[in-house]
Amino acid sequence: MKKASIKDVAKLAGVSIATVSQIINNKTERFSDETIHKVINARNELGYIPNIAAKRLKGGTSPLIGVLIPSFRMPFFADLIQSMQVDGPENVDLVFMGANEDNLEASIYSLIERGADALIFGRPIPEHQKMIEFLTKRNIPFLSLDQSADLDAKDQVMVREWQGGKMAARHLMELGHKKITLLMAEQMTDNMHQREAGFISALYYEGIEPIDNVKTQLSKHGGLVAAEKIMATGATAVFTLNDEIAVGLIRGLYEHGVNVPKDVSVVGYDDTDYAEFFVPALTTVRQPVQQIGIDALNMIIKRLRDPDLPQQNDTLELKLIVRESTGVPRSDN
Amino acid sequence: MKKASIKDVAKLAGVSIATVSQIINNKTERFSDETIHKVINARNELGYIPNIAAKRLKGGTSPLIGVLIPSFRMPFFADLIQSMQVDGPENVDLVFMGANEDNLEASIYSLIERGADALIFGRPIPEHQKMIEFLTKRNIPFLSLDQSADLDAKDQVMVREWQGGKMAARHLMELGHKKITLLMAEQMTDNMHQREAGFISALYYEGIEPIDNVKTQLSKHGGLVAAEKIMATGATAVFTLNDEIAVGLIRGLYEHGVNVPKDVSVVGYDDTDYAEFFVPALTTVRQPVQQIGIDALNMIIKRLRDPDLPQQNDTLELKLIVRESTGVPRSDN
Repeated sequence: MKKASIKDVAKLAGVSIATVSQIINNKTERFSDETIHKVINARNELGYIPNIAAKRLKGGTSPLIGVLIPSFRMPFFADLIQSMQVDGPENVDLVFMGANEDNLEASIYSLIERGADALIFGRPIPEHQKMIEFLTKRNIPFLSLDQSADLDAKDQVMVREWQGGKMAARHLMELGHKKITLLMAEQMTDNMHQREAGFISALYYEGIEPIDNVKTQLSKHGGLVAAEKIMATGATAVFTLNDEIAVGLIRGLYEHGVNVPKDVSVVGYDDTDYAEFFVPALTTVRQPVQQIGIDALNMIIKRLRDPDLPQQNDTLELKLIVRESTGVPRSDN
Repeated sequence: MKKASIKDVAKLAGVSIATVSQIINNKTERFSDETIHKVINARNELGYIPNIAAKRLKGGTSPLIGVLIPSFRMPFFADLIQSMQVDGPENVDLVFMGANEDNLEASIYSLIERGADALIFGRPIPEHQKMIEFLTKRNIPFLSLDQSADLDAKDQVMVREWQGGKMAARHLMELGHKKITLLMAEQMTDNMHQREAGFISALYYEGIEPIDNVKTQLSKHGGLVAAEKIMATGATAVFTLNDEIAVGLIRGLYEHGVNVPKDVSVVGYDDTDYAEFFVPALTTVRQPVQQIGIDALNMIIKRLRDPDLPQQNDTLELKLIVRESTGVPRSDN
């Protein structure tokens, strides 16, 4: 048995296709109650759903917005898309894709082919010039979250990454740390570099030179395996690129008998929902993840309504959350 | 500027719509190279993408499978859908929805309206009779993961939850625990009840009666606030419904000065990707999350190809992963 078509509904109701179309689209003024009932009954009987393309032409459907993130497994992004879905505007449909470099292009084409009206990029796009041309040609507006500021999108939601790095540095210096290092990722996006630069410049401002800048993989495992390198720096405090790396690092230090915060203080970034539950609970820079999601959706909706709107830019504030993973330097320092 | 239509392509190429349609669908035999080039160039120039409904009719498109989960924030489900996307079959398109009770029905209708060919339910559906009728009428096959065994779907991917509970109980008894309690959720799905029952029956089999069965909210916070109740039971070991509750509980016990595993042993369930990074690393029952995702996709693809296939059932094995959160009972017991 095939899916029912509008033709099937018309046949069963004994009316024309045009009549079915109008009644289903709530243009019932011209029809008798009897005709309306016949059509509605036939539709229910057959389980007919008008296809989206047809509804779109009549302006009856919410826009479909595709959201691309690097991975569903990264808690920051899981948090982001959950916020979009639960707290975002009601008059949009959302579709989420966790795209790695291998399937990125295919994911984008598939989203467009499926009828996505606009895209939100939560991950960097390599060779983005080609992608921008592709989207521009098709009049698909796109917005970038700060993870992909290098996309040069018309509209952007950013956070003050520089300030975030600075807050972390100041906190550690106020605790009395002087031997400070960074644990960053091997592949850094534009906003991550700002995070790092804000941290380093705040240290220099107080005459402190960071000991080293260890690079690792952007994951909990990456943090874990970097523990030895961090220990080798002799630092009493570490600023990590995100909470995942921080958590892995704390675990790695623990396995080497190094206590956080007694021996080494660790500051994370993001404030993902695990941060407060760890032992020790993470001191971290909180991202306004819910606001990022909602602002991005509202912005892209405005853009869809008015493609000629001037560039929209939104820059959100970060907040340092002090918990247990940072403390005064150990007494021999 | 509007999106380009097939009509626009035909006009620019100076050929008929039927010609464009055939060439774009790779039926080029009847046409000269010159005509083919004209059409391809016109398509590229205008950025025309055939709409999905039209392509579907010609059988040219991968099926679209909608996957419903309770929340993107739950690591088990984040893991599941990431596995589906990265390791699943290539010839399907996936769309994920994190649906709570409020937006569940709307999410399902929206998925179908958007052209979903089949659904995978990773969460229970209240009033599922109505939903089943709705889907059956529209010939939309659906499959349930064991989180929603109560759906009575034709096809199911389950895990041996009973065995999982039993493994956890045996492990604690082998360590010498006799004062054992459970920390379950206020709202339990069918498979969660099996998990619990397997645990309890294994205790009874050895003549041990569980001290109590504390209920809490299905979240890290739920685990945290249950710590006092668990302490009041006097138990030396706790089996928790999942890793999230376990992590919250360990944090809550820590805040009351209770050490895991010295004072109390804790067993989680799922083996989410944080489990090994916690301090203490979680002893937990590992779900074959990747296999669940891949099997579900393969099964639903078979069902789409052959709606009359007999019921498909897949039952996967669990594995106990012993780490640091369990140990021998404290010496006064």
